[in-house]
Amino acid sequence: MNIRFDRVERAQQLMREQGWLGIMVMNHDDYRYFFGADRSQPRAIIPFEGPPVLVAFAGEEPELRDATAGAPIRVFTHVGGQIQDVVMAFRDLMKSRGGPPPGAKPRVGMQMWFETPAFLVDLFRRVNPALELVPSDPVMDRLRMVKEPEEIALLERAQSIAALGMDRVREMLAPGASPHEIATEALYAMMKAGAERTSTPIYVNAGRDTCWLHGRISAGPIREGDLVLVDLTPQFEGYCANLARTFVVGRPDGEQQRLLDAYAEMREASRDRLRPGTKVADIDARGLEVCASHGLGEAHVDGISHGIGLRFEETPASTIVKPHRNVALLEGMTVTVGHTILALPGLGGVRHEDIYEVTPNGGRILVPYPVDPVVGR
Amino acid sequence: MNIRFDRVERAQQLMREQGWLGIMVMNHDDYRYFFGADRSQPRAIIPFEGPPVLVAFAGEEPELRDATAGAPIRVFTHVGGQIQDVVMAFRDLMKSRGGPPPGAKPRVGMQMWFETPAFLVDLFRRVNPALELVPSDPVMDRLRMVKEPEEIALLERAQSIAALGMDRVREMLAPGASPHEIATEALYAMMKAGAERTSTPIYVNAGRDTCWLHGRISAGPIREGDLVLVDLTPQFEGYCANLARTFVVGRPDGEQQRLLDAYAEMREASRDRLRPGTKVADIDARGLEVCASHGLGEAHVDGISHGIGLRFEETPASTIVKPHRNVALLEGMTVTVGHTILALPGLGGVRHEDIYEVTPNGGRILVPYPVDPVVGR
Repeated sequence: MNIRFDRVERAQQLMREQGWLGIMVMNHDDYRYFFGADRSQPRAIIPFEGPPVLVAFAGEEPELRDATAGAPIRVFTHVGGQIQDVVMAFRDLMKSRGGPPPGAKPRVGMQMWFETPAFLVDLFRRVNPALELVPSDPVMDRLRMVKEPEEIALLERAQSIAALGMDRVREMLAPGASPHEIATEALYAMMKAGAERTSTPIYVNAGRDTCWLHGRISAGPIREGDLVLVDLTPQFEGYCANLARTFVVGRPDGEQQRLLDAYAEMREASRDRLRPGTKVADIDARGLEVCASHGLGEAHVDGISHGIGLRFEETPASTIVKPHRNVALLEGMTVTVGHTILALPGLGGVRHEDIYEVTPNGGRILVPYPVDPVVGR
Repeated sequence: MNIRFDRVERAQQLMREQGWLGIMVMNHDDYRYFFGADRSQPRAIIPFEGPPVLVAFAGEEPELRDATAGAPIRVFTHVGGQIQDVVMAFRDLMKSRGGPPPGAKPRVGMQMWFETPAFLVDLFRRVNPALELVPSDPVMDRLRMVKEPEEIALLERAQSIAALGMDRVREMLAPGASPHEIATEALYAMMKAGAERTSTPIYVNAGRDTCWLHGRISAGPIREGDLVLVDLTPQFEGYCANLARTFVVGRPDGEQQRLLDAYAEMREASRDRLRPGTKVADIDARGLEVCASHGLGEAHVDGISHGIGLRFEETPASTIVKPHRNVALLEGMTVTVGHTILALPGLGGVRHEDIYEVTPNGGRILVPYPVDPVVGR
């Protein structure tokens, strides 16, 4: 545990600008960001001023007291106690600000992404009727979109682990190989290299399953001539890797080669546009042009790039939040290129995904990994 | 893919009793339950009558057409298309029922557990203002709480895989062993045995970290005399295992032995109460008595038992939904015993968790696994 008071203070400055009472942290990524550690049930409050408030189970108190050097801790001992603690902490906070403001309810920010369950948000609203709950993005994006150098180093480490997993995949790809065995061995290689877990299940999609927008582990054995799409997402100290490659087991046919060629060209065009000021919509528009020039305009899907860091998909994430299409890239952001599948329904699809840092000269790939699709011959 | 029309029809019967328009499926477990397969983005509508409607990406259409033998499929091709499809499907459904009913809005059920993100629920409400969204539990619990024999067989298979993982853990436990290496090897053993993934990250908590209400992978090496708590949650065909054991590396001291003895007695008392009609609150009350008789009443935490099946925690899940404390067990339910940690803050905690089938004679353990805590001497 390592409370990052510098980050807390920057969040508080932004909260005061927005007039917020605090941020309720219930997600692994924000918890890691502020406290340099994770818990299975991350719960904390970042108030508009003063030290953060940790909410933890009684059994964890001695450890937290040692680790936090005096930060306030709300300790619960029974079902419901945790909720009670949060309500009381916000009441105290309101009092410390001299009671509720006249007119509007005081605002509290909370992350509203895939990890925030609807029933917890409903519960929070029900037990805190005096508060207005809003998405925490306006504060947290300002803090987290542009990465600190140490964050980029951790992303590189995570992506290097993904590269080791992909090496293992390449060794195993051959006619008759089992997608489940490939996923098993890749996961083992990445865990041995230090991965804590993966952000998503490993995808090893073979044959027609490469058309899936996202993935799974295909059922049958890999056949000669199959496209095989592998997506690896190990985490290291909470930072998320994302490395996807598509392989042809044997000799690519004409359609497969067309998909591979178009994707390679779209990837390079996108990488070149990862400069401050570019919008994701601009990158997608250029991608559509490239695909159309290969006769694949109908197969193009928007959303080739998304932010990545402590969250697997973070701002800009235009396939989750449509207005993010218009977020302008900033120097020092980390984004993927290759999120989109390019698929011919019933035949197969291609995706090559890597992480880049946005620079004035275009994207700098964090960990170069070959695009070398023909294997197993 | 294997559409379970029998289950769809039972859901429709219950929906008509409740006056619902349909159920929006957005979760892996309900999707598996109805369609016998999973997707990375499960999206379907079970209407109050007629065949289910699958919502899928264009690239997946040929595969789905082959697999579903004519069920309606709504195919989206771009960002936002998916949302549009859902809205249109519900409008058509309302029309097929002769327009909206007078007075109240037509109700649509949706699962509201950990996997249902708050922002998707907000989005659904915003784009479907003519509908009232309610938790789908009143229908889905009636279908899923009592397990079919084939479901119990799949749970046994999953739990057997967890047992193989725990065997591997036992082999490795010794002073100096790395919790991360233990987690890596256990996961590898379980994947090789057919696990698709785990429901939660593997927990290998050592020393004081065994006090955590839930877990993580402890940082340091295991030391002589440490308590080590391991929780394994592999999935097989979507069915969730849950096997937890606590070990002492070396000779247990007096406090450790007291925790182990109390937990063993609480476990047996709980297992004995897994009969039709018992409430989780009754089991917890007896657990408190047992702990108090060992001088550990203060350390007792409610919530020793939860339902398990295609979801890792399903009804009754009293630590998530407090009113579930009063759900009466039914013959054929599958529940865990051992969800609760029994911890002395700063010293250590114990948990032994298994899955049982509720029978008139008390819980039948699905896969017996020894409680044999002393290792590595």
